[in-house]
Amino acid sequence: MLAKAQVLYDFTAEPGNNELSVKEGETITITNQNIGGGWLEAQNSRGEIGLVPEDYVEVRPWGTHRVKGAVCSHSHTRALVLEEWTSSAGWSFSSDACLFLQSNGNDPWAVFDTNASGGFSNNWAAQPEGTETGRTGSSVWGSSAQGHPQAYQGPGKPLRLCALQSQRIECTQDVGPVWEYPETQLDCVVADPKKGSKMYGLKSYIEYQVTPNTTNKPVNHRYKHFDWLYERLLDKFGSAIPIPCLPDKQVTGRFEEEFIKMRMERLQAWMSRMCRHPVISSSEVFQLFLTYKDEKDWKMGKRKAEKDETVGVMIFSTIEPEGVPDLDLLEVEQKCEQFSRFTKAMDDGVKDLLTVGQEHWKRCTGPLPKEYQRIGKAFQNLSSVFNSSGYEGEATLTDALTAAGKTYEEIAQMVAEQPRKDLHSLMETNNEYKGLLGCFPETIGVHKAAIEKVKEADKLVATSKITPAEKVTMAKRLSTMSYSLQAEMNHFHNHRIYDYNRVMQLYLEQQVKFYETIAEKLRHAHSQFTTM
Amino acid sequence: MLAKAQVLYDFTAEPGNNELSVKEGETITITNQNIGGGWLEAQNSRGEIGLVPEDYVEVRPWGTHRVKGAVCSHSHTRALVLEEWTSSAGWSFSSDACLFLQSNGNDPWAVFDTNASGGFSNNWAAQPEGTETGRTGSSVWGSSAQGHPQAYQGPGKPLRLCALQSQRIECTQDVGPVWEYPETQLDCVVADPKKGSKMYGLKSYIEYQVTPNTTNKPVNHRYKHFDWLYERLLDKFGSAIPIPCLPDKQVTGRFEEEFIKMRMERLQAWMSRMCRHPVISSSEVFQLFLTYKDEKDWKMGKRKAEKDETVGVMIFSTIEPEGVPDLDLLEVEQKCEQFSRFTKAMDDGVKDLLTVGQEHWKRCTGPLPKEYQRIGKAFQNLSSVFNSSGYEGEATLTDALTAAGKTYEEIAQMVAEQPRKDLHSLMETNNEYKGLLGCFPETIGVHKAAIEKVKEADKLVATSKITPAEKVTMAKRLSTMSYSLQAEMNHFHNHRIYDYNRVMQLYLEQQVKFYETIAEKLRHAHSQFTTM
Repeated sequence: MLAKAQVLYDFTAEPGNNELSVKEGETITITNQNIGGGWLEAQNSRGEIGLVPEDYVEVRPWGTHRVKGAVCSHSHTRALVLEEWTSSAGWSFSSDACLFLQSNGNDPWAVFDTNASGGFSNNWAAQPEGTETGRTGSSVWGSSAQGHPQAYQGPGKPLRLCALQSQRIECTQDVGPVWEYPETQLDCVVADPKKGSKMYGLKSYIEYQVTPNTTNKPVNHRYKHFDWLYERLLDKFGSAIPIPCLPDKQVTGRFEEEFIKMRMERLQAWMSRMCRHPVISSSEVFQLFLTYKDEKDWKMGKRKAEKDETVGVMIFSTIEPEGVPDLDLLEVEQKCEQFSRFTKAMDDGVKDLLTVGQEHWKRCTGPLPKEYQRIGKAFQNLSSVFNSSGYEGEATLTDALTAAGKTYEEIAQMVAEQPRKDLHSLMETNNEYKGLLGCFPETIGVHKAAIEKVKEADKLVATSKITPAEKVTMAKRLSTMSYSLQAEMNHFHNHRIYDYNRVMQLYLEQQVKFYETIAEKLRHAHSQFTTM
Repeated sequence: MLAKAQVLYDFTAEPGNNELSVKEGETITITNQNIGGGWLEAQNSRGEIGLVPEDYVEVRPWGTHRVKGAVCSHSHTRALVLEEWTSSAGWSFSSDACLFLQSNGNDPWAVFDTNASGGFSNNWAAQPEGTETGRTGSSVWGSSAQGHPQAYQGPGKPLRLCALQSQRIECTQDVGPVWEYPETQLDCVVADPKKGSKMYGLKSYIEYQVTPNTTNKPVNHRYKHFDWLYERLLDKFGSAIPIPCLPDKQVTGRFEEEFIKMRMERLQAWMSRMCRHPVISSSEVFQLFLTYKDEKDWKMGKRKAEKDETVGVMIFSTIEPEGVPDLDLLEVEQKCEQFSRFTKAMDDGVKDLLTVGQEHWKRCTGPLPKEYQRIGKAFQNLSSVFNSSGYEGEATLTDALTAAGKTYEEIAQMVAEQPRKDLHSLMETNNEYKGLLGCFPETIGVHKAAIEKVKEADKLVATSKITPAEKVTMAKRLSTMSYSLQAEMNHFHNHRIYDYNRVMQLYLEQQVKFYETIAEKLRHAHSQFTTM
């Protein structure tokens, strides 16, 4: 599906210049986003195609909701940066009271603990740009550079939540907050692994071709680039969104075909999962990874992403719950507890299934086919003994016995090969979920710590560590965090339902085929014996 | 199928007496052999039914070949005893030169060894009746009481061999010597095990009902009666025919339903195999077991059978190869070697299959269903975790997951129960054959010892231990033994082909059903997931 765009200003095409005239308010379809030079190729409702200035239209990657403000284009993503924006949750880019700071470590609330013993400091808000933020995990939430949102290097847009229903699963009731989803779901194909080398062939590596469905233009990436992307996404979104690990690094045997194929499959699954996430898929760093134009573009984008300060809990500052009331503490706690219980239980369930699956895999590739092989050999052996009887008229029996024996040998091979056909995807999906679920304890930990801090707020007010107004802001922000967690859980549930439906269907389909094929083979073997 | 009989003498029915007139040479069908009082009920070709004197007809239990001589009736079997008969192989019931004697032990040729050191004795031929013969395994071959065949208490008829083709298996070539088979195959049903007691309830036992297809009249037997029959058959036929052991004796748990059922099934298989053997099935002792009239009849028959002197190698004296030339030593040796190799190889093959089968049985009833159960539980567990998500709209998934889980639990049960349905009969048949094959080394041992003795014959003639005429007789008798062994092997092969065809069909049929049922169950489980 092609992306739609809304025309923001009238534009009149210059004749003979391959341009398309558009009117404000008109909806057009982007047919090529990669024209460059500030132009897009688009098609209007009458089917006419032509070039339109990028700045004159608003591309809508996350739905049809219009967001106030001007449009400016980044290198590749069509992101909205608001000139002056204050979110409904109370975030703004003015030098707001900086309550939630993270100095270092992974706990965004560590500063509170520090302050509890050493006095509350508000100075971080005024900390100059470029100071220890980003990669080390230190991050600022609710604060940024002073005054101007332009200076804010976040995801470039508020991550909006709205109370939409899930579109994948029939759902008669409201599921609660959900992320705003793009009309067209991003996806990409990871394929065509090629051996590359550098330093005059001294260093070899495998390069994968990654082709997004938006541009249909392949870009090349090595595993280490995926790893770089993972680190960026983890830094940037890890507090709100589980970012599953990449498939295992491996040094030995990494040029073996089997390994490359497996890694590619897992990178594909990881990328697809990231593409399916509305927040991640529309982020600048992710778009850079998928659609960089050339080496220079890639390097510049990398540098920019590495300097991104909207990392850690700062991600919550970019989230705007839309048209929903603030949640009270009790509700937040209940939701958090519910998610904690669920993810823990599912983690156990998934691990249990994985253990069972691994054992079944072992049996299916080890003793079981050996046994079928031995049954097959025993029949064939008996057949050749019978053949040596010197008794006339048993060719039918010995042929049938040999055929039956061979059938069991075929079954042995089928049994041994079957796990790759069915158990494999079940295991891969569950492994993916194991990875995802492994991220939740931290996400939920951040959440729980925030709850504790809000619970302490009264004491902080009493000891004049914070003002009553700051306490209100804290609660408001916790409400946003909760909405974010709920949206993420809903995203998780939605995709979980889809994934498990799909993988179970796949598994059972292959299982049915497997047993049907065996039955068919045995039916044939049976037919070769004489009916007397 | 009803037995046919040939009318030996004209008989004119007395009016109003329910009799049937018959003419010499006419073929009639016996409709009731158990009329008693010297009468049979028979039907002629025009469909008329009436009574005919037993002595006027020759019932043909082993085919249509007419045997010269008069017909006399034993208690229940319709056996031919020839008034004066000399078999083509040179056996006769006159006081023939007694060359082959067995004094004691199982080696019928032991006397030669004894004589080699202690002088050759011909005296055994004149040994009075009732002297140490029979049960202890000592037996006389080629000798019997003097002069009169009436005194000979053997199987009551010569066991005839003829070069018939197998009737079971399409066979384009002559298979060599075969036993003469009855037109109607004897069979019986072992059923209805009942607990009986004696000594005022102090001793309990299980009594089985045995119903032969000839009389359709059930008789009762305890396991110990079967065991008695086994001992009689082993004594009488063991040198020529493999008599497989009975199912294991068991003292503890022998009143448990499962055990009784299993023992009954095995007694049935054993009885059916005995019934299928033309020599055994037509023997007096076997007929007594199946058709005794009352307790007195049974006891008398038992006493008679226990006194039977035609035991051990004596059985060969009752075998008459029909219309075939004597075999030379080389041929005899070659055949013997061939059978020895084959039975050894088949014994190995059968044991191998049994080992494989036992392991498969263990896996099918042990770890495999446990694994399917665990898979089933893991799916159901995941389903109940999903159910606790609080997310709306996943009832379809959780229901389907539960159903899939239950399906795998059902499969677990199916897997565990399957061996009883298919592997069981395969194992039982192979166990039967293991038992049969275990008898061959002894049978072949008897044969090989006879070959060695015939090889030594020249030396014996040279040292005047035997006359040249006796040497010729020895060779002739060895030829008969070889024909007997060949007939037995052909019987074995014929039934082996039938049995393995049948059991493999049964096995594969059940296997097909098993896999089809699983596929069907999984197809149903699959259909419950949403197609998206």
